[in-house]
Amino acid sequence: MLVLLTGGTGGAKLVLGFHEETAPEDLVVVCNTADDSVVHGLHVSPDVDTIVYTLAGLIDPAKGWGIRDDTFTVLDQLQRLGNESWFRLGDRDIATHVTRTRLLAEGQPLSRVTAALCRALAVRSTVLPMSDQRVETRLSTSVGDLSFQEYFVKARWQPEVQTLRYRGMERCLPAPGVLDAIGNAAMVVVCPSNPATSIGPILAVPGVRQALRETSSRVVAVSPMVQGRSFSGPAHKLMATLGVEASVTGLAGAYRDFVDVLVIDAEDQDLQPAIEKLGVEVWATSIRMDSLDDKKRLARDLLQLSS
Amino acid sequence: MLVLLTGGTGGAKLVLGFHEETAPEDLVVVCNTADDSVVHGLHVSPDVDTIVYTLAGLIDPAKGWGIRDDTFTVLDQLQRLGNESWFRLGDRDIATHVTRTRLLAEGQPLSRVTAALCRALAVRSTVLPMSDQRVETRLSTSVGDLSFQEYFVKARWQPEVQTLRYRGMERCLPAPGVLDAIGNAAMVVVCPSNPATSIGPILAVPGVRQALRETSSRVVAVSPMVQGRSFSGPAHKLMATLGVEASVTGLAGAYRDFVDVLVIDAEDQDLQPAIEKLGVEVWATSIRMDSLDDKKRLARDLLQLSS
Repeated sequence: MLVLLTGGTGGAKLVLGFHEETAPEDLVVVCNTADDSVVHGLHVSPDVDTIVYTLAGLIDPAKGWGIRDDTFTVLDQLQRLGNESWFRLGDRDIATHVTRTRLLAEGQPLSRVTAALCRALAVRSTVLPMSDQRVETRLSTSVGDLSFQEYFVKARWQPEVQTLRYRGMERCLPAPGVLDAIGNAAMVVVCPSNPATSIGPILAVPGVRQALRETSSRVVAVSPMVQGRSFSGPAHKLMATLGVEASVTGLAGAYRDFVDVLVIDAEDQDLQPAIEKLGVEVWATSIRMDSLDDKKRLARDLLQLSS
Repeated sequence: MLVLLTGGTGGAKLVLGFHEETAPEDLVVVCNTADDSVVHGLHVSPDVDTIVYTLAGLIDPAKGWGIRDDTFTVLDQLQRLGNESWFRLGDRDIATHVTRTRLLAEGQPLSRVTAALCRALAVRSTVLPMSDQRVETRLSTSVGDLSFQEYFVKARWQPEVQTLRYRGMERCLPAPGVLDAIGNAAMVVVCPSNPATSIGPILAVPGVRQALRETSSRVVAVSPMVQGRSFSGPAHKLMATLGVEASVTGLAGAYRDFVDVLVIDAEDQDLQPAIEKLGVEVWATSIRMDSLDDKKRLARDLLQLSS
């Protein structure tokens, strides 16, 4: 069993690589849920959805989120009715949110709802939300206190971020299966997702970081950045909120208590000695995942680390 | 001010006629809400929607419900996700229900939500739900206890109905504006909607029937049937649940305490003496409304009764 900790877009690329290179049944994907939002009264779980759609073969490959060839009829009409429409929800995607919202309102936990969606979409891997309780990343910025979606989508990650916090984290528990998966994994892979807003919340769920420190399985993290800049999104901008510099060395510092191997890009190889000084093994390779072949190759290479 | 009491399809035809023949601002349309359903967790208000879409020029004229040229992408995907899909919700229509559900969850009463939808869709008439409280028509049938939508849409009004009741009616109040409108109307028109499941609930809202009896304005009812059969739907089948026979005479008996004039079809003219014996004035004319011209002509003729 291979356990993947991930956010949305960036991590999903590697999740897809593993999905293509191993038996899908052997994958347990633990998703960040601190970006979850209630939009038009519907519970949207962006990272869970990106992973589920990726595993179901439905993802829009150009955008990296949403369902391929989806239409926006509902959203256009919502806008006509006076609703905001900066959060883009496609019609098929809305069916997911409507179903999730109803099941949650009926009292089902998010983990069971996610399992039901996976079954309906013939996803053979296990997708787990990090927690069944509601956690929300809030960012103190130059333009006020924002949710992650307000910062990331509406403000296009332009405001200066002073601090961030995971609201509700202290009251939450890991979703059923998360700690067991980490404890019994052949390998745990921390996917190349934002360390502050995607991986950070998963690590902050009470018990998760401890489980990662204590597991006898190898924990491998793949860097989401090269030369101090993230491949996509604001990861490098937000690393200061973790109290570390925006570099793979900073990342190693943030993960050193539980990560055995940090996979960095060959372009960052000069930083290897500094990282190793922190007690973290380094493997430098090409970590760009532009094509499906890139994703598969990186997954294949990582699988070798588990043996 | 002209006050129209109505359900969906049948009544909406006459509402459209009045909309075309008078100043839209002068119309107050009081809609049945006992057919309201929560579908996929969304609050659907079928009669309110049919009237709002009719007045907004959006109605699907072929079906008599829903929005013209709407698509069904969300519903198809909901079905793929394992949801029932017998209740047909179009994509644009879903935007209405999503908006309504959110506003209700935020604590707004249905009457304010309806007014907001009307404003957004540039409807100039006033559309009022009969009540802001939830009422639900339940039917005891040969196949069990059904909601109106289960009976009408899912079971295509085939089961034998023994009794019906309006669940929650005793706790509900007329929506703000309903009693005032009835009291101050130039004329009240009971539209040709189902007497048991559309008009019946409106009349049963505490205070409404009394207001109709006491108003000094003329109250005119248009028959939804001819020769003992309704123009569309199960009206004639359900009249027994009101304890009256399925005929315009039966209808006159059910409405005689508050109706001044009953408008019947010329084909039913032989029943005029029997109805007049009940103390109800009769006007026989053609009440079929197949074309827009039919709707306008009937509205125009009815407007003469108000003077």
